[in-house]
Amino acid sequence: MKTETSIQGLSASLNPARSARKIIGFIPTMGNLHEGHLNLVREARKLCDVVVVSIFVNPIQFGPNEDFDNYPRTLEQDSHLLAEVGCDIVFAPSVEQMYGHHPRLTNIRVGEITNDLCGLQRPGHFDGVAVVVTKLFNIVQPNYAFFGQKDYQQLAVIKQLVRDLNMPIEVIGVPIARAEDGLALSSRNGYLSAEHRQIAPVIYQSLKQAEQDLHAGKALLDVLTEIRMQLTQAGFVVDYVEARTPMLQKSDQFDQDIVLFVAAKIGNTRLIDNLQIKHIL
Amino acid sequence: MKTETSIQGLSASLNPARSARKIIGFIPTMGNLHEGHLNLVREARKLCDVVVVSIFVNPIQFGPNEDFDNYPRTLEQDSHLLAEVGCDIVFAPSVEQMYGHHPRLTNIRVGEITNDLCGLQRPGHFDGVAVVVTKLFNIVQPNYAFFGQKDYQQLAVIKQLVRDLNMPIEVIGVPIARAEDGLALSSRNGYLSAEHRQIAPVIYQSLKQAEQDLHAGKALLDVLTEIRMQLTQAGFVVDYVEARTPMLQKSDQFDQDIVLFVAAKIGNTRLIDNLQIKHIL
Repeated sequence: MKTETSIQGLSASLNPARSARKIIGFIPTMGNLHEGHLNLVREARKLCDVVVVSIFVNPIQFGPNEDFDNYPRTLEQDSHLLAEVGCDIVFAPSVEQMYGHHPRLTNIRVGEITNDLCGLQRPGHFDGVAVVVTKLFNIVQPNYAFFGQKDYQQLAVIKQLVRDLNMPIEVIGVPIARAEDGLALSSRNGYLSAEHRQIAPVIYQSLKQAEQDLHAGKALLDVLTEIRMQLTQAGFVVDYVEARTPMLQKSDQFDQDIVLFVAAKIGNTRLIDNLQIKHIL
Repeated sequence: MKTETSIQGLSASLNPARSARKIIGFIPTMGNLHEGHLNLVREARKLCDVVVVSIFVNPIQFGPNEDFDNYPRTLEQDSHLLAEVGCDIVFAPSVEQMYGHHPRLTNIRVGEITNDLCGLQRPGHFDGVAVVVTKLFNIVQPNYAFFGQKDYQQLAVIKQLVRDLNMPIEVIGVPIARAEDGLALSSRNGYLSAEHRQIAPVIYQSLKQAEQDLHAGKALLDVLTEIRMQLTQAGFVVDYVEARTPMLQKSDQFDQDIVLFVAAKIGNTRLIDNLQIKHIL
């Protein structure tokens, strides 16, 4: 496995593969990798000849009150994990390398679907994601890019961006990796106290209960209220519980496939999760 | 010369060239071609193995009071001209093909340098240009893209966009093509009455006079006032006369290379022109 820290170095590393028309797979990350990220690499490994993972903590997707400076940077440990699952190239550029050479004047906004859910609490966050992903796509020029379904809204934003701008890339969403008790894997789980870690799986349990209830015919709005109650009772402060279509349009009836979204805080840690629910006729 | 009207058809036409690692040159246009456009093709011909010209009247760069519906569409005549100067592929998609398949949520804004000069009179215009150029770049995936220096602000916006988003494309600005009397070639010249066509070269004459005056040591602000006076006397309604650095930063001293910009109306026709002036120590 190679590590490249400059755009030029990465291009030089990728050029032979590109000339040979090999299939390039790409996974953008902010590092501090867990099993969820490694699953993305395993998926990429199946489809692609060359797998590139970027590790870049992107300053422009953090809000002024967010934890850019304290975001965990664990490049050495991440590199060991990536080598084990068969990553070929790690791209770990500096902020200088990505943004430093001249003032950036360009912004990309994917409207409507970034205004609510996580976008409501994090103004500008998805603009920052759209810009960095576009830059990384243009630098790596992959055939496939892999994103976790855990950040479902982010995945939908990137699919929309790729479609709207005719980017020559196929975006693949990979199912959420979960701990045995159902908690969706996340870098943020490391912030949980032992006690809160015990409570955290209630999110997934409430989503699975909702799925059962919906298939049993219970009304969608009642099911959403139920989730909210369960979470509050368990000690969460709920940010949102919502149902959307797969492309994030609002939905208050379970008359097509839907996705249930939860964001809730336990202690100081904000957790998100979602569950795709098939509409069975 | 081939003509393609679908993205899929264009890809199929370009794939053999791409596989053979040939150099692809691209010139986006809105058609109604004149000698200025043909010069771009000639420049592309020198550097590239395959030359693609797109002809697409882009609805989203027209304001609500602008002439999208009446913009001249002369595909047959354009195709003859392009074949003569050695274009390989004309890409002439429908609006449906470029935008029709789903609602577009993505916008691209190149800030600051789009807020004034032509941006002031045409809010949203450069966003529309940035979006369509990004789409076309992703569809054609050229090595080089060629733009005329006549639309200097547009060229600067696209250079900034390419740099900010790390697009793997080199943007080349081609000098303004002029009529013998100095008038910058433009689709809009066709709207001029015989009388106004006589007056129109005053724009270029006033710019050349300004260059002489600056090199003779006259103050920049006086020179700008002089241009404005000459245009007004000749019968123009001046929109702006401004000096900028090559990257469009404001400049009120001639202490570095500058570009003089003019936009002025004669009758109902708005003409623009510019002149790059070297600072000689």
